[in-house]
Amino acid sequence: MANLSDETCEACRIDAPLVSQEEAKALLTNLDDWQLIETPINQLHKVFHFPDYQGSLDFSNKIANLAEQEDHHPKISLEWGKVSVLWWSHKINGLHRNDFICASKTDDLYKEN
Amino acid sequence: MANLSDETCEACRIDAPLVSQEEAKALLTNLDDWQLIETPINQLHKVFHFPDYQGSLDFSNKIANLAEQEDHHPKISLEWGKVSVLWWSHKINGLHRNDFICASKTDDLYKEN
Repeated sequence: MANLSDETCEACRIDAPLVSQEEAKALLTNLDDWQLIETPINQLHKVFHFPDYQGSLDFSNKIANLAEQEDHHPKISLEWGKVSVLWWSHKINGLHRNDFICASKTDDLYKEN
Repeated sequence: MANLSDETCEACRIDAPLVSQEEAKALLTNLDDWQLIETPINQLHKVFHFPDYQGSLDFSNKIANLAEQEDHHPKISLEWGKVSVLWWSHKINGLHRNDFICASKTDDLYKEN
């Protein structure tokens, strides 16, 4: 399977298909340690660690830039030395392939550090 | 009572006193719509809204700058058009006067927009 991070998010319409539970589990195997959260809706979650505040802040801003590029916006929670990221698709209230693409791109940004 | 945002955070030691529940409620009256969260530990919480992503991102970065200035770091959760802020003191696992000072300074940053 080609790397998800080589793909680009497509526009997500309100009638776009949710990724099925089986597809989600298959796509997860292409990601590095992302967790599938199932309550209250399906979301992708991962926590990234840093040795200082500046590292976590810089990473948050890189994800925010990615969000604007892809026109797809996660929840980024910044604390000292720790960034928690949640990707999901608001319009369809769950997971779209876009979320797996963006999770993979988030990992690429982390590897840049 | 003088404005809390005119004060500066003092170094928070592991044996610093927690703000009592009565003090917390009195200090809250000096803040604008901050909520006292009591579970799992006492924290101050507020959600700020913006008409676009850039506004929410800029505000997050202003709070991060404040955090570095005061050497006191909240949890900042950034979404499209929405920033959620939680202040508490990690070392004492609850609320210190510093948290009320920083909440007040956060409001001042929001008013700058």
